[in-house]
Amino acid sequence: MGCQAGRAHAAVSDGEIRAMRRALTLARLGPLHDPNPRVGCVLVSTGGEALAEGWHGGAGTPHAEVAALRRARERGIDVRGATAVVTLEPCAHTGRTGPCARALVEAGVGRVLVSVDDPSALAGGGAGVLRAAGVDMVTDVLRAEGLDLLGHWYDAARLARPWVVLKTATTLDGRVGAADGSSRWITGPQARAHAHGVRARSDAIVVGIRTVLCDDPALSARIPGEPEAHQPLRVVVGRRDIPPDAAVHGPGADLLHLRTHDPARVLAVLFERGVHELVVEGGPTLASGFLRAGLVDEIHAYIAPVVLGAGPAAIGDVGIGTIAEAARFTTRHCERLGDDVLIVATSAHSSNDKEY
Amino acid sequence: MGCQAGRAHAAVSDGEIRAMRRALTLARLGPLHDPNPRVGCVLVSTGGEALAEGWHGGAGTPHAEVAALRRARERGIDVRGATAVVTLEPCAHTGRTGPCARALVEAGVGRVLVSVDDPSALAGGGAGVLRAAGVDMVTDVLRAEGLDLLGHWYDAARLARPWVVLKTATTLDGRVGAADGSSRWITGPQARAHAHGVRARSDAIVVGIRTVLCDDPALSARIPGEPEAHQPLRVVVGRRDIPPDAAVHGPGADLLHLRTHDPARVLAVLFERGVHELVVEGGPTLASGFLRAGLVDEIHAYIAPVVLGAGPAAIGDVGIGTIAEAARFTTRHCERLGDDVLIVATSAHSSNDKEY
Repeated sequence: MGCQAGRAHAAVSDGEIRAMRRALTLARLGPLHDPNPRVGCVLVSTGGEALAEGWHGGAGTPHAEVAALRRARERGIDVRGATAVVTLEPCAHTGRTGPCARALVEAGVGRVLVSVDDPSALAGGGAGVLRAAGVDMVTDVLRAEGLDLLGHWYDAARLARPWVVLKTATTLDGRVGAADGSSRWITGPQARAHAHGVRARSDAIVVGIRTVLCDDPALSARIPGEPEAHQPLRVVVGRRDIPPDAAVHGPGADLLHLRTHDPARVLAVLFERGVHELVVEGGPTLASGFLRAGLVDEIHAYIAPVVLGAGPAAIGDVGIGTIAEAARFTTRHCERLGDDVLIVATSAHSSNDKEY
Repeated sequence: MGCQAGRAHAAVSDGEIRAMRRALTLARLGPLHDPNPRVGCVLVSTGGEALAEGWHGGAGTPHAEVAALRRARERGIDVRGATAVVTLEPCAHTGRTGPCARALVEAGVGRVLVSVDDPSALAGGGAGVLRAAGVDMVTDVLRAEGLDLLGHWYDAARLARPWVVLKTATTLDGRVGAADGSSRWITGPQARAHAHGVRARSDAIVVGIRTVLCDDPALSARIPGEPEAHQPLRVVVGRRDIPPDAAVHGPGADLLHLRTHDPARVLAVLFERGVHELVVEGGPTLASGFLRAGLVDEIHAYIAPVVLGAGPAAIGDVGIGTIAEAARFTTRHCERLGDDVLIVATSAHSSNDKEY
């Protein structure tokens, strides 16, 4: 897309592109699982010299721009007229830290390069603040790389709710269990190991209380050789009590019981807690609820070369009566995992068309 | 596996391997869709010189060995003591042509090299006839290539029935239609075009009468730019009449109406007609019948990134009550076709472990 600035400004130099790559690398020093996005910042002199660097270390610590400005000040470096190269549009709101856009203006920065806009209603608008102060703004610099860095934080900020992945593990004929309810195992060890990897990359796992009562899952991310794998928040949805001896009380992350059946309410609570991406793992009623509400962004369908012919379906009634109303997704990725196949498909909500 | 001959014999020479490759090439001159297998034969002198060649041109024409012997005779070439290099074990029965094993013995051939054994009860046993006559027999020469040439003719000969492919085209949740029965289309144009290619490679397509009455399919192989594509035999199974204006009466191959619900009976009739491979295309009742009888060798599952939540399942009840009884297949191939995914899986009946 190039540049969206409304006024004339100097073209982006090779040195500035290099500075943005460095800022993207710095950003990855920040924590992957955090309410805040990973952001990096490099301050560059008008002559092209790197003056100071900063990155965001997670909620409660200084933002990347503030960290870079602070480091410059500590070293007595004058940043007036300098260029700030930042992976994300500087924020315009006062949270636990002051607004970064204001800090850059006050430091006398003359030019700001941004990779990705901040789509959130609360913190967005920093580019406008900077332009209004006469700062030369260039946006969309290495935007694809910037989006890749942010992952589903960007989608969540844009949608003002977490990105929702629905996971299913079925037979070729769409069953999650046999007629008697038995279901261990339909998919093989490679598919199950893959699903644990997805859990470790997610902020939260959501299941219905019925799944807890019937299957007693631990809802932890168990990865051989990685005892320190990130553990997602465990969320159980539904009115009935969680038994005191349920496996979800075992080793893993916090357990949150939401006594509601409303998917939008579930997402609002989790977004408030800083969850950007969650996996809905079952059962059919919960899956239907999210689909019916149009709140599934991505499906991970693990399919085993097995036929049952009867038994519970992966997805219950979602109110679709005819083929024209079908919920259609776009296939992003397809992969063999031992004897099983994983299909990843996204809804129209997806912010980019990347192939996984 | 090398060689299964029970007595001492000379090792297979490079020249004999070359002759077998030539025989495999000759075999492919024969018709692909025929009750008989494609077979090639090269007669080689003890000095390694090619004396004569032959191949089978389809049912009612001479077998490859007889064709080669005839050509040698026409040219006045003495084949006594020569080696016959044949892609398939010479037959031992008298059909429309005399037994080839006997013809080779009578011609005075001293050695016979075979790629693939003939597993059929009727025609097999030629190797025994030749050995009993004192001919040096070597089997399993380039066997993988020989099996590849024969395709499902070999499986059909071994099983004494056609190889059965079950085709399904479903949503991610295993539906073949919406709650109101509408089903056009679940999969996209690339998946549908692929399925037409599979029809053109098959000997027959089988559907239930209910599918004819509800969906009115033409059951022809329609391939853009290939108006002369092979058309499979059209087979409708079930007691009700086929309407006189049904699309199955349109352009395409012969139409066969079998007024039975017994999959084994259907296969017996079609095997008798020279069908080696057929595709069961629906509906759920017919699919269940074949699965319940253990008569599905291969599944072609086209899966669209679509969710319906309700509607008919691809496969009806097959009498499986618990997960331990699940019908398990082995995935051979997985492929993206536009937005859809094709999974090919085979049962334990498969004769080789080739990846598609």
